[in-house]
Parts: sequence; C-alpha cells; structure tokens
Amino acid sequence: MKRDLITVNDLTVPETLALFEAAQEYELMLPAERLRLRDLQAARQCLLMFYEPSTRTRISFQVAAHAFGMSTCVADAVGTSVVKGESLTDTAQTFGAMGFDLAVFRHPEDGAAAQFAREFACPVVNGGDGCDSHPTQALLDCYTLWKRKLLKEGLQIGICGDVLHSRVARSNARLLNRFSITPHFIGPPALLVNAPAGEGSKMGFLASLHTELDPLLPELDVLIMLRTQFERHGGQELVARDEFAAGYQLNHRRLQRLKPKAVIMHPGPVNRGIELADEAMADQRSAILEQVANGVFVRMALIALLVTPEEAL
Amino acid sequence: MKRDLITVNDLTVPETLALFEAAQEYELMLPAERLRLRDLQAARQCLLMFYEPSTRTRISFQVAAHAFGMSTCVADAVGTSVVKGESLTDTAQTFGAMGFDLAVFRHPEDGAAAQFAREFACPVVNGGDGCDSHPTQALLDCYTLWKRKLLKEGLQIGICGDVLHSRVARSNARLLNRFSITPHFIGPPALLVNAPAGEGSKMGFLASLHTELDPLLPELDVLIMLRTQFERHGGQELVARDEFAAGYQLNHRRLQRLKPKAVIMHPGPVNRGIELADEAMADQRSAILEQVANGVFVRMALIALLVTPEEAL
Amino acid sequence: MKRDLITVNDLTVPETLALFEAAQEYELMLPAERLRLRDLQAARQCLLMFYEPSTRTRISFQVAAHAFGMSTCVADAVGTSVVKGESLTDTAQTFGAMGFDLAVFRHPEDGAAAQFAREFACPVVNGGDGCDSHPTQALLDCYTLWKRKLLKEGLQIGICGDVLHSRVARSNARLLNRFSITPHFIGPPALLVNAPAGEGSKMGFLASLHTELDPLLPELDVLIMLRTQFERHGGQELVARDEFAAGYQLNHRRLQRLKPKAVIMHPGPVNRGIELADEAMADQRSAILEQVANGVFVRMALIALLVTPEEAL
Repeated sequence: MKRDLITVNDLTVPETLALFEAAQEYELMLPAERLRLRDLQAARQCLLMFYEPSTRTRISFQVAAHAFGMSTCVADAVGTSVVKGESLTDTAQTFGAMGFDLAVFRHPEDGAAAQFAREFACPVVNGGDGCDSHPTQALLDCYTLWKRKLLKEGLQIGICGDVLHSRVARSNARLLNRFSITPHFIGPPALLVNAPAGEGSKMGFLASLHTELDPLLPELDVLIMLRTQFERHGGQELVARDEFAAGYQLNHRRLQRLKPKAVIMHPGPVNRGIELADEAMADQRSAILEQVANGVFVRMALIALLVTPEEAL
Repeated sequence: MKRDLITVNDLTVPETLALFEAAQEYELMLPAERLRLRDLQAARQCLLMFYEPSTRTRISFQVAAHAFGMSTCVADAVGTSVVKGESLTDTAQTFGAMGFDLAVFRHPEDGAAAQFAREFACPVVNGGDGCDSHPTQALLDCYTLWKRKLLKEGLQIGICGDVLHSRVARSNARLLNRFSITPHFIGPPALLVNAPAGEGSKMGFLASLHTELDPLLPELDVLIMLRTQFERHGGQELVARDEFAAGYQLNHRRLQRLKPKAVIMHPGPVNRGIELADEAMADQRSAILEQVANGVFVRMALIALLVTPEEAL
Repeated sequence: MKRDLITVNDLTVPETLALFEAAQEYELMLPAERLRLRDLQAARQCLLMFYEPSTRTRISFQVAAHAFGMSTCVADAVGTSVVKGESLTDTAQTFGAMGFDLAVFRHPEDGAAAQFAREFACPVVNGGDGCDSHPTQALLDCYTLWKRKLLKEGLQIGICGDVLHSRVARSNARLLNRFSITPHFIGPPALLVNAPAGEGSKMGFLASLHTELDPLLPELDVLIMLRTQFERHGGQELVARDEFAAGYQLNHRRLQRLKPKAVIMHPGPVNRGIELADEAMADQRSAILEQVANGVFVRMALIALLVTPEEAL
C-alpha cells in the first residue's frame, strides 16, 4: 500500500517524532556522511507538480530529493495539460502511469491533493492545497519548536495575521493539537472569519480566536506571523494595509513586549513593512531562516519515510 | 554519423521491432535490474527543447532519460531565445555546440524538427512538430498493439476525430502502413480535409477516409480517438461541439457496438465529454493508461538506440 | 570564506590564466576521461536563479554543472517569489539557507548580483546583471582569444553596436584591460552615450570610442558585434534599424575589408539582418559557435575553482 502525506494527520505522533529525529540526523551529518546519501535513491524519480507558483517550496523539495540522488521532473502551471482542460483525475492517472516513485503536489484548491493522491500510483506529498493544508510547513515549524524542546503542552503560541487564507495556520493548528497545544489565532475580524470557532470546529482542530495581538504579546513563547496574502483577497482590500500594520505588524514596539526568549517565525515570503517590520527580521529571536533550513531536513526525512530505499529492493 | 528520429520512417521495420523488444525488456525488468540502468548514461546530457507546451511528452522523455542516469535540461517556449527573435537554425547550431548527447524537440510548425536536426550536432528526436509528425506517439501506440500481437496485416484500426490537426493520426498511419495496415481515418468533413486521399497521397501514407463512425464500429479491432484540438482551430469553431459529439463521441451506445475485444486508445490529454464520454474512460477495453506507461519504455529503448552507452566509449 | 564571481575583477590575471588552462583541459578531454568527472560533485547542488529569461546562458551553466554530476534547480522569473514581492535580500537569505553549494544569478538591474551574493550563503556566479556585468561571457570571449594566442598587448579589438545596453561590452573591456588591451567601442552616438569616455572613466575601464566602423575595419584583429537589444530600448527606436545597418552591420562589403585572419565574434542570440548579415554568420572567420562551446568549458573551470571537490571533504 502506498502512503501519502495529505494532512499532518497522516502521521501518528510517534511517527512525527521519529521524522524529527531523522531530520535532525540529516541536519547534524558531516559532509562525508552526506556524500553517502547521494546514491540511496539514485534510480528513483520524483515529480513536482505545481498548479500554483511556489519557488521556495518546490526548490526545498528538489534539494531534499537530490540529496538522495533522486531525479526530479517539474510540471508547473504554465504549460501543464491543465491548460488543455484535462481533469485532475486524468492528470493524476496519466502521470501516475509514468513510473514515478514520489510526487509533490501543490494546487490552489482545497482538497485537490487528496483527489490527486487517490488516482496517483505512488506516494503523494501535499505541497500545499487551497487555504486548508500545507503539512510539510507545519512539520518544519514544529520541528523548529521540537529542537528547542518547546513542542509540549502549555506552549503559548500565537499565529497572527491573515488566518483566513492561511493553510499554514490550519496545518500548524492540527499538528500542535496532537501535541496537546491549542494555538491562538490572531487577526482582524475580516481575516479571521471562516476560521474555526474553538472546540467542535468543523475544521477538525482547536484554536482560540483573538482580534487583538497586543494583550497576548507578553504571554507568547512563540509567535508565527503569517504572510498577508493579498493575492488571494480577490482584488478587494479586505483590510487596509495601514490599519493592518497598526494592529498586527510585528515592529519595534511589539518586539519589546515579546518575551526575551520568544521565538519569531514566518513561513515566508515575508512582506516587509506589512506583517513584519525590518527590525523583526533582524531580531535575534527570529527563527525564519532556520525554518527554511529545517524545511530541507524535514522533507528529506519525509522522503526517506515514504520511499523505500533502493538497497531494500 | 548521428542518427535522428524525425518521422517513423527513420527506423526500418526490423529496427522498429527490435525497439519494441527492447521496450518490453525495460517493462519487464525487476527493480534490482532497473537499478543497474541508472549509470549507463550518467555522464550524458539530454536537451528538451519545447517550442510548444507539452508536459506529458516532455516528462515522459525526462523519466526515460533519467532511468539511464542522464541529466536533462529543459528549454521551453517561455523564456527561450525564440523570444529574442533568433532563427531556428541559429538556435540549433548554438545548443548543438554545447555538447549535448541527445535532444528532444517539439515545435508547432510542420518540418521544424527536420530543420532543427539538420543543424544540431547530436541525435534529435522529434517530440511532435506541427500537424505532421509525432513519431514516438506512433511508436508507443504500435508497441501497445504489438504487445497484443495485433500489429499485422488485416488489423482493422480506426483513427477518429480531429484528423485534420493530428500529427498522431499521420504518424500512426505511416507506421501502420509499414506493417501492411491501412488505417481508417474517421471524422467530420471539416476535420478530414487535407487528410490524405487514399493511395498516392502526397502525405506519403495510405488511409481510407470515412465521415461516419457508426457503420465502422462493429468492424474495428482498435479505435484510436483523437484529441479535438480546439486550440489549433484558429479561434473558429470548425465543427459545433454537440454536433461533433453526436457523430463521433465514444459513448455508452457506441461502446456497446464495439467488439468485446476491441482496444480503445487515445493519445491524451482527453477532452472528456467531447471525443470520449466518461464511460469510455472507464471501459475495460481502454488501453489509455497503458499507452502512457508504454511511452516511457519505448522512449527508453529509443534513447538506448540513438545514444551509445558510455561503457562503449 | 566563500568566493563569488561578480565581475571579472574577482579573478587575478594568474587565476584567469589558470582558469583558461583548466577550460582547455576539459575541452581536450577524451570521452573516457570525461566520464570520470561525473562524480566529482555528485552530491553538490547548484541553484540557477534567473530574474531575466536566458535559455542559452542558463543551459550552458547547467551542462557545465551536470558534467561534474551536480544537481541543478532552476528558479526563473515566472513563478519566483519575486512575484510575491519579496526583497532580493530576503530571497538570497532564504535560498542561501537551503544548503546549495553554488548559485548562478541573472537579473535585469545593475548591481543585483553583488547584492544577492552578499546575502547568499555560498558562492555566487553572476550570470549577467543589468547593463554592467556578464563576467562569464567576457571570460569565454577572452578564452577564445587566448586559445588563438591573441590575448596580449597590441591586440586591435573592436566591440561594435549597441554598446549602451551591453554588459558584454563592459565586462570584456574590464577583462581586456587586465591584459593591457584597450578595446575600441564602436556605435552610433545614441548607443554610445553613457559609455566610458576613455581614461579616468567612472566605469573602471578604458575603451576608445568611435562612431564609425568603416575606418577601423582594416585595423582590427578581432571584431565583436553586439546584439542590438531593442527590448532594452524602452519602446523607443533609439536608432532607425536601416540607419543602424547602413553604418554598422557586418555585411559582405565590410567582410571584404576585414583582415583575412580577423576573428568575428558575437555573444548571441544574433539578430540576422541587423548587426550581422547572413554572410557574416557563414564567414570562415566567425568564431561564434566556438564561443558557445567554449562557454561550457570556461564555466566548468569556474565551477571547479569555486566549489571544493567532494573527495576533499
């Protein structure tokens, strides 16, 4: 039976922890040891199917695949058969018939990754679909916390900004819940609606909702600032930029109110001057670049989990 | 002397059959044997030059090249020097000077692949040019028939739909002719004009022309439904979609009239609801996904034929 | 300390000559020796970040990287995070955190490569930025001259055409100066302005300026014709095409006035009928395709210089 990663719930908690251990092994490897990885999957082939542009996620997966010697083929929205009007089901079956060993899939619509995976012949990793799921982002975020021994009950973590359009918020909430953590979702009402309303949420996770960031600041151990996704606001300005910045931008004043050991995170790409002021990027508490580096290690661990190494064949 | 595959006529019949034998060897290989392929061409480099978007053909070739350990470079219409107004001849000479071992070439104009190959320093495989040639599609289609022991005189094969714009129809006709098979071209008059008019055709192949599908249905051993290429109809509706579907769509009624052992094929991507109804896709007689899988094996065999393995150097 | 190549001045003259020696070794290698290169960097990863379309430069670098077994990831302007409004600094830091071993970078703005390199964690090669620098083009051009033993004081070399928009002209002038050669820049006044005005130039190099090509023709040992970059003329016709051709096009008449042993060069892609007539392309003295081939060898030598081979780890 093939195994997919469509949401973070496709891994059990012990599996998630084992994934983090494996990611850390890759992270701590000496160059000479890394050389030995390069042939583990050298006859394997990975498809990167991106119906939505995403250079950073796509390339992070490519680097992870290449580390094991895997070949990669990129199909992006420009020039895919989607242009020719083929259904997602037919595309999945078609590319599934080509003999790939793994696919990474991104799509602008909720549920598209599960639909693709149902028809695709080999393991599928959801590289982000719609506003719902971006499981590898949540895994790398939680790996970043796990390395700091923060991934445990009682953690006060805020996820702030454009929650409405954020698959990062939703995937993180699901994964944090499994470690008995209920995140605080923080944002202006117009960017919080449709967010889960606490217990019993249809979204399948728990989060507490806040329309103000300032009162929470001194309590937070971790603050994930979200990218304000103006491109998904459908041409409307759901919130005025200066109003948003006034209420939620992580700036000098707010940085001073954050705990000295708080961790500042952002999934990138950052809108400087909107959700983050320059001083937040430069702050010693920022783990933003570490998140990027961690992303490669977590994706390597995931590939190793989903694709049997060749020597085992 | 370098060797190109511009049309199916660039291979003799014995070479074509040897290619099918080789493709089948790749298809039947155990995983452990496949591992051994990965180093055969590991210092070889393949250029994929696509002046027309085609994810499925491009990626099928990439998978085939990667199976031998070849590196691939993709140049597609977006961002190629074609944008900068360079002639095809100059582009061929330029990329030919870079030391590639193989190029796969696709272009919207008839004859472009031959023009490119004349100036390119190493073997060129035509990945489809204009409305005239798509030799690897014909090879994989005929491989699909050969595996079923159908590729022989007397085969009743229909090629139905938008024949006018179909390089798949033309390449298949040429290849079938070499196995003493004359295909039936079937389509509405507006999509049959310019098709070869039987014997003595300028197109260099024989096909019988039919404007009605229904009378032929019970006779056919194989029915290749073509993609209706509205994007090549120049903005005009050459045939009304409902009229086309009424006369030619492979639907429940027509499926019932096809022989129980008939083979249904389509080069993809499929326009569901136009040339194929959903029930045709689901029909047990459909070989559509097998065609896709076969495409990789046939392209592997072709690469092995055109590019000397490195150990022989 | 990482080492970048942002301008030709980042290499000393002895280093440049050593680079040419290494390039020549790659050029003269037998196939069996080339096979041995393919594993030298097989666990290394190269990022190709192109904010401006350039198939030929990008693919030349990919071929060079693949020759050592390196993996490559392409990020081009379509679909990069630049679309999402991320700053160049943040992009450099982000991709720098992914564990690449080398980046090739192209950008439409002057100085962008240096800005990127400052923030990128590993060696950066400038693949062309703005109208200022294209160091690997200058290196391959001078390698072409070096192989002919022409790279020495007293060489009469003209660089003719759209000097105003040419990073090729500027990079070549800088590199030629280091070999005690002052090139002649030749072009219509509207395409020469902002070019350096001889000694003491702010551009940091020496060139003599000429608005007429004809008087110089019999004196030249080398003539580099530049691509007329209408796409950078901002929609204006800075010079009428027929006027430009009348004064500067290398055509039959001018070819007759060039020395029998003169070398004709062009960085490509060529505008036939503008800066070069067809007869110039076909002329025995043209080194244009040799330049392309040399580009791969020079880039291989550069990669070998900047990236420590793995066995040394």
